[in-house]
Amino acid sequence: MRNSLGEQVIFTLFGESHGPYIGGTLDNLPAGLVVDEERIKRALARRRPDGKSSTARVERDAFQIISGVYKGRTTGEPLTLIIQNENVHSGDYPEGLVRPGHADYVAHELSGGYNDPRGGGHFSGRLTAAIVALGEICRMALETKGVAVMTHIYRIGDIYDQTIDNLEENGKTLQNSNFPVLSKKKGEAMLALIEAAKAERDSIGGVTETIISGLPLGLGNPWFGSLEGVLSNAMFGLGGVKGIEFGEGFNFASMKGSEANDGYQYKDGEVVLLSNHNGGINGGISNGEPVVFRLAIKPISSIAKAQPSINTASHENVILELKGRHDPCIVHRICSAVDGLTSIVLLDEFMKAFGKIYFCVK
Amino acid sequence: MRNSLGEQVIFTLFGESHGPYIGGTLDNLPAGLVVDEERIKRALARRRPDGKSSTARVERDAFQIISGVYKGRTTGEPLTLIIQNENVHSGDYPEGLVRPGHADYVAHELSGGYNDPRGGGHFSGRLTAAIVALGEICRMALETKGVAVMTHIYRIGDIYDQTIDNLEENGKTLQNSNFPVLSKKKGEAMLALIEAAKAERDSIGGVTETIISGLPLGLGNPWFGSLEGVLSNAMFGLGGVKGIEFGEGFNFASMKGSEANDGYQYKDGEVVLLSNHNGGINGGISNGEPVVFRLAIKPISSIAKAQPSINTASHENVILELKGRHDPCIVHRICSAVDGLTSIVLLDEFMKAFGKIYFCVK
Amino acid sequence: MRNSLGEQVIFTLFGESHGPYIGGTLDNLPAGLVVDEERIKRALARRRPDGKSSTARVERDAFQIISGVYKGRTTGEPLTLIIQNENVHSGDYPEGLVRPGHADYVAHELSGGYNDPRGGGHFSGRLTAAIVALGEICRMALETKGVAVMTHIYRIGDIYDQTIDNLEENGKTLQNSNFPVLSKKKGEAMLALIEAAKAERDSIGGVTETIISGLPLGLGNPWFGSLEGVLSNAMFGLGGVKGIEFGEGFNFASMKGSEANDGYQYKDGEVVLLSNHNGGINGGISNGEPVVFRLAIKPISSIAKAQPSINTASHENVILELKGRHDPCIVHRICSAVDGLTSIVLLDEFMKAFGKIYFCVK
Amino acid sequence: MRNSLGEQVIFTLFGESHGPYIGGTLDNLPAGLVVDEERIKRALARRRPDGKSSTARVERDAFQIISGVYKGRTTGEPLTLIIQNENVHSGDYPEGLVRPGHADYVAHELSGGYNDPRGGGHFSGRLTAAIVALGEICRMALETKGVAVMTHIYRIGDIYDQTIDNLEENGKTLQNSNFPVLSKKKGEAMLALIEAAKAERDSIGGVTETIISGLPLGLGNPWFGSLEGVLSNAMFGLGGVKGIEFGEGFNFASMKGSEANDGYQYKDGEVVLLSNHNGGINGGISNGEPVVFRLAIKPISSIAKAQPSINTASHENVILELKGRHDPCIVHRICSAVDGLTSIVLLDEFMKAFGKIYFCVK
Repeated sequence: MRNSLGEQVIFTLFGESHGPYIGGTLDNLPAGLVVDEERIKRALARRRPDGKSSTARVERDAFQIISGVYKGRTTGEPLTLIIQNENVHSGDYPEGLVRPGHADYVAHELSGGYNDPRGGGHFSGRLTAAIVALGEICRMALETKGVAVMTHIYRIGDIYDQTIDNLEENGKTLQNSNFPVLSKKKGEAMLALIEAAKAERDSIGGVTETIISGLPLGLGNPWFGSLEGVLSNAMFGLGGVKGIEFGEGFNFASMKGSEANDGYQYKDGEVVLLSNHNGGINGGISNGEPVVFRLAIKPISSIAKAQPSINTASHENVILELKGRHDPCIVHRICSAVDGLTSIVLLDEFMKAFGKIYFCVK
Repeated sequence: MRNSLGEQVIFTLFGESHGPYIGGTLDNLPAGLVVDEERIKRALARRRPDGKSSTARVERDAFQIISGVYKGRTTGEPLTLIIQNENVHSGDYPEGLVRPGHADYVAHELSGGYNDPRGGGHFSGRLTAAIVALGEICRMALETKGVAVMTHIYRIGDIYDQTIDNLEENGKTLQNSNFPVLSKKKGEAMLALIEAAKAERDSIGGVTETIISGLPLGLGNPWFGSLEGVLSNAMFGLGGVKGIEFGEGFNFASMKGSEANDGYQYKDGEVVLLSNHNGGINGGISNGEPVVFRLAIKPISSIAKAQPSINTASHENVILELKGRHDPCIVHRICSAVDGLTSIVLLDEFMKAFGKIYFCVK
Repeated sequence: MRNSLGEQVIFTLFGESHGPYIGGTLDNLPAGLVVDEERIKRALARRRPDGKSSTARVERDAFQIISGVYKGRTTGEPLTLIIQNENVHSGDYPEGLVRPGHADYVAHELSGGYNDPRGGGHFSGRLTAAIVALGEICRMALETKGVAVMTHIYRIGDIYDQTIDNLEENGKTLQNSNFPVLSKKKGEAMLALIEAAKAERDSIGGVTETIISGLPLGLGNPWFGSLEGVLSNAMFGLGGVKGIEFGEGFNFASMKGSEANDGYQYKDGEVVLLSNHNGGINGGISNGEPVVFRLAIKPISSIAKAQPSINTASHENVILELKGRHDPCIVHRICSAVDGLTSIVLLDEFMKAFGKIYFCVK
Repeated sequence: MRNSLGEQVIFTLFGESHGPYIGGTLDNLPAGLVVDEERIKRALARRRPDGKSSTARVERDAFQIISGVYKGRTTGEPLTLIIQNENVHSGDYPEGLVRPGHADYVAHELSGGYNDPRGGGHFSGRLTAAIVALGEICRMALETKGVAVMTHIYRIGDIYDQTIDNLEENGKTLQNSNFPVLSKKKGEAMLALIEAAKAERDSIGGVTETIISGLPLGLGNPWFGSLEGVLSNAMFGLGGVKGIEFGEGFNFASMKGSEANDGYQYKDGEVVLLSNHNGGINGGISNGEPVVFRLAIKPISSIAKAQPSINTASHENVILELKGRHDPCIVHRICSAVDGLTSIVLLDEFMKAFGKIYFCVK
């Protein structure tokens, strides 16, 4: 698989930053799911840059579903959605220049020079709009089974958001926000950091945190189909992700088993866990507690500051000072893509575990 | 995929901790690869517990290759290797008791109670012996193309090993060690920490670091077949792994773009990178620099210390005090499995990128 | 896989007969392949109904490549092509009526009634236009390696075309024909049969034959990735295909081993086969001789003649007399789809055997 | 996929004719299925050569299940079964000689000469024993849902068995037979034909027919996951299969739509089909009628009669007169493999359609 994901629900992503359309296909969705186009619009609005913290390239993200939906519901056949590219400034990317930290150079070498380099081509964050739109369709399906997915900015630089402590309340705060933080004060401090980076013609990194509530026990597999593994493989598809951890993650390194283990207890005939250090997953399989993961997001590589680079057309060393319109930080913008991609992965996992029939509307 | 991995070279893992055999199959290997059984024995020896830092269950790991090898070389057809289980104490695992932090409970629920619970059954670290043995066959193939894989203990508790700084020298130090560290002094401090945890009837976590040298540009893919993604999916298959990061990983969160980007320069007509913050991967694709990743390993969940748990047979709450023979730390033992699994993944990636023919012996 | 095919080159098909667009995606094509849109147009013209033997629904098949092509060549990233649906008469398909022999009833039941029933929805032969268009891109790639694919009408009713005996000459006769036969006289007799069926408000079946020349030894695999198997799985995707045979096929039943075996001989240092009863495949693997297969095509199920059926909306038994515009025979129209699909499968097989790099333009 | 099959239940086959073991793995079986070893023994007995119509190589087929079964039931984890090879006469296959019609030559070329040529190595019919044994486990699972699979010799040379007309009665006649025909008289005529071929140091081909009863509507998919397609891909894995047809198959070529369509009718509130020309499948999906398919089996290529061939070791043309112990006909012996493979495919299709949970024992 290259641009596809999944075993039952199969997601395929296509398009280039400056091509006519980007889009994607979801094959083998359950039939009869409601497709609420207003929800998709709101999800795309969350992804759109807003104000000073983001790029000046703003697009309407007008999408069209060209197959797989009939009378407002999924047919179960491939659902393809396309989004037109607008507001394209291809001149901002001079031929032969490769951005340090970006995929420009590997894309050029891998394709023998036949890649579309405009705006990063297929390696552009622009394609996450298709992930957000198609992910929202999966998210609506998950909600019918009580599953909610929420992602917030966990950290930018050394400023941390407050902890998620009330799934319902926190979810309301985060939904529809295009700078999803729980603490307004911490959010302002983060924005100040981003502003400062921008003023220095630079960029800054961060960490996102995702909580999935309402999952039953039984999603995932031992060994190579673990829930951690399939989520990770999907998440590393998002440009800029360089690390992922579940539950206590890297903190486990200095913990004792007695601190890290989540005890069990019967309460009113139900099995409950006494803590959730493992982030809702044991042995690769969801255990019924909320699944928690965090993604390390590197600072965006397209910066205006001078950097040493090369020109693959002229074969010369150059000092690169990018013009173009770039985000000084993508941590907040990536949150909606993480929600969408998580939803796509989870719907596939549900169908692998419980069958397509589980979501089918009778 | 559940217990399988790969698209061209397909690896399948089978067996239970206390069943007659564990083993695995590698399908679609290049034909003509030398299979050096002495190398496999040495790799298995690295995995075996040694002295005080590990379990008292020691096995000879006598393996047999039952298909796919003829006159000491691969035929290109499925290679199946089996390892007999010996020294089994099934009585150490009383029926119905589930270990907090382990897969016991999810395994029981997922299978409707039909799982093999003895020694964790299929969810046991015992199966990593098959990964080590089959991985070594792939590693020998990679070496013929100049690719080396090495893993050391990066950290146990808050003790860090020294940094890998000389691939060749460090590789010699680490190979054949079953407590792979570069700094002897730090290794002793780590062992002391493990001893202390054991004395408290507890366990302790850590972090491993893997360096892959000699990779050409071009392994991996954009989006959902990224080199980071496929390595991650494989690594989360290993019990105890709860996080993975590439290059600077979670440190990227507080870095600026100008610090994180790896500049390019032509030197004697060749393109070189001026640093390797990205851990050898851009846009999901190897860039020619060494690939570097670290794994967060949680403290082993089987501890002798008293813990609250349940008995799924009697439906009672219990205080669990495990007997059995358990490692107080698996960070050092997992290193050989990480090497093996990395080698399996890389051989598949080579074949996806360059074709099976690339490794075929003429 | 449902609407997808392939392991290296992955083809995904989408759309409904009366939706806005049909189309498909080819992922992981080699980069640098020339995409000649005139060739695609000619291939689509071969598929279009012509004169009396076909439906009155004629479409321009205006296509647009919306990703994966830059400056007239493939980039190696997903190539998506869409074709607008025109000339749609949805009123011809009254709600609840199911056509005997067609997928209407299973589509309705499988989707819980949420399928798009208009014109057969996703189960319509209309989608083969996308197969023809995308297949032609693969066919152009194959031609650069000397591989040619040609399909003719082998039989309609009991009228047989003459045998393919000169690959080059026959290829010229068949290319660009939308009633591909070698014998003009037999073709006229076939057309007369089709006319007669149409006059009776009925339809008629037939057999196609495909010859693939120029294949090297080594495509395919033993057991479950056999060249016969992967071609078959693809071909049964085409509506109306109910049988496939390779080489002597069902004639083998009354043959002796001594008649069926293809002897070997060295000639000028090269190994040659003395006959080709096995249709170019031994043990699931191409042997260097032309690959030959035939497809049984059932008579099209949409007929105007009265038939017993049901109305799933009213739950009544009915006598169905279809109106609409239907082909009395699809054997000739399916030939271009068989060529296209064969080309897609072969490009994938080439890449599995020899690597993506084999087709890459330096 | 090469030696693997399936998406949910994944089957992997390994071994060589003269290696220590052959075997296979079934991953992701439902947990709790009864594994009746006596049933597996009987299935293997059906496959064994009996009397004059078959090879003199007779093996006990002693098998061992080495993983995935606990207390007589499946655990849901990989089930691996191995069968020891006995009675091996490797000297019968002189080095460098390739049998016309067999895979010897392609196997040699594909592997660069590193294949195991003894007894055909991995390309040997010997491996079907593993298919029969593992298939029987799937067949037992299917029976709990009322699904029965039966295969008989449809034809040898020009002698046809009588038609299957009573699923229950016919099933009793065929089960446990290692020459499965319905008409005793026709069976004797077939045996006489086989004897005659043997006397001429030759072999003879035939056709098998398989009926699957009890399938619900809804297995399979449109386009590339059609039930016809997945069954075909599996069946072409069996050495000697050169054609497959469903329902009327190649007879459709001379049929009219009005003859070929299967009408629908409501009877007592249930939808019934008035005929079954389509062999239980419409649009790639099971329609509730019995699924019917036939396989063209070529005459076995290993014959004692003199044939022109080559020696790849000496690079000389030779006249080959095989010694060894070969079947003059495999049509009857392949029936048990067809049953087994069909059962494996169907269990996977059930799980794709209805989820793993459908077969799980509560």
